[in-house]
Amino acid sequence: MGSTASQNKQKAVVLLSGGLDSTTCLAIAQDQGYDCYGLSFDYGQRHRVELHSAEQLAAEKGLADYRVIPVDMRGIGGSALTDASIDIPEEEGIGIPVTYVPARNTVFLAYAMAWAEVLAAKAIFIGVNALDYSGYPDCRPEFISAFQAMANLATKVGVEGQTIIIETPLIQMTKAEIISTGSALGVDYSKTVSCYQANEAGRACGRCDSCRLRRKGFMEAGIDDPTLYSGS
Amino acid sequence: MGSTASQNKQKAVVLLSGGLDSTTCLAIAQDQGYDCYGLSFDYGQRHRVELHSAEQLAAEKGLADYRVIPVDMRGIGGSALTDASIDIPEEEGIGIPVTYVPARNTVFLAYAMAWAEVLAAKAIFIGVNALDYSGYPDCRPEFISAFQAMANLATKVGVEGQTIIIETPLIQMTKAEIISTGSALGVDYSKTVSCYQANEAGRACGRCDSCRLRRKGFMEAGIDDPTLYSGS
Repeated sequence: MGSTASQNKQKAVVLLSGGLDSTTCLAIAQDQGYDCYGLSFDYGQRHRVELHSAEQLAAEKGLADYRVIPVDMRGIGGSALTDASIDIPEEEGIGIPVTYVPARNTVFLAYAMAWAEVLAAKAIFIGVNALDYSGYPDCRPEFISAFQAMANLATKVGVEGQTIIIETPLIQMTKAEIISTGSALGVDYSKTVSCYQANEAGRACGRCDSCRLRRKGFMEAGIDDPTLYSGS
Repeated sequence: MGSTASQNKQKAVVLLSGGLDSTTCLAIAQDQGYDCYGLSFDYGQRHRVELHSAEQLAAEKGLADYRVIPVDMRGIGGSALTDASIDIPEEEGIGIPVTYVPARNTVFLAYAMAWAEVLAAKAIFIGVNALDYSGYPDCRPEFISAFQAMANLATKVGVEGQTIIIETPLIQMTKAEIISTGSALGVDYSKTVSCYQANEAGRACGRCDSCRLRRKGFMEAGIDDPTLYSGS
């Protein structure tokens, strides 16, 4: 790490989950010439193999710096992703699913904003997507706009007239478009984990909401799905 | 704890730092009839005795529940309150002081929002104050309004049309008014700690920005200052 860091490049904080979307988001930020600072969160997520995937990615992609912030979401509870007593649904449901983690993206973006301010970074990249997504409220463009407005008022740099821009390059892409974009930028999707209940070897269940969206994306993009499924 | 909890009362998450403002804020929320859920943060603050004061308060005030969330602000740095290499200033300066912790209130309110959503709480109380304050951007009314707008879009309850109200009863009060209000509600200010560099016994320095504002407040309120100063 630090090998590609340069005094002349603009800095960006990039949220990395180890999944398909954030990995594509990092590739886009690097392609735009940003010196990238990776930020992951250990929030007691069941799918911890995703976090290992993020750490591996951070080591391989020449980030200027990388941090994993422990976030105590289990203490707050209320989601199938952080509460072992709630099952991960394997069929499409109606409304916002139980995998929704209350305020997750707000908490993540708040930390990213803190680090961006300390680094004097120009942008925060987050791979939220509002088309092929699970219906989480904090993935929608109107949420991001409201967060941006709040961020401009919350920070010392904002008061001084500089804005930390929340960049959401994937927000209006289909999963197929995300996969096509990332593939063109050389992203190796076999190293990303999207499954909510991947096993310890990183093999995906193929049945949860996240697996279904991912599988459909590869199919629609006409790109071979490199995902290792636990049944295959 | 839990002794005053009732099925019929509205719930509120109350941010507790152990300082004068948040202690007054709790008294106001309880006076308004809320069943209060206290939330404190261990963010590596130098003035850890403040956190002990919050824990003591939580135990005494009949809260429905109380949580201390570890928040890794040291990993991000950039403030005299979390970075031992930056001195606490003892004279009034110009602009936003070095005790500003990047994105602190945004991070705190994001966690409060998560817990409020899980609890189905009606309100979040935060003791920010924009008159006799240190000039932090995230204490201003415009920040709170922007956070409220963002919160309405960020949450599942918001999407379903219920709003978690961010209550800031102190925001337009002078320190003297805060002290008068709290005193009328029976707050024992000798148990609160405001100093940024209080010693382990909870004695205040009397010189930092927070001490100066507090001392002036008691004087203007015409109420005896019960603060124990390290020099006295």
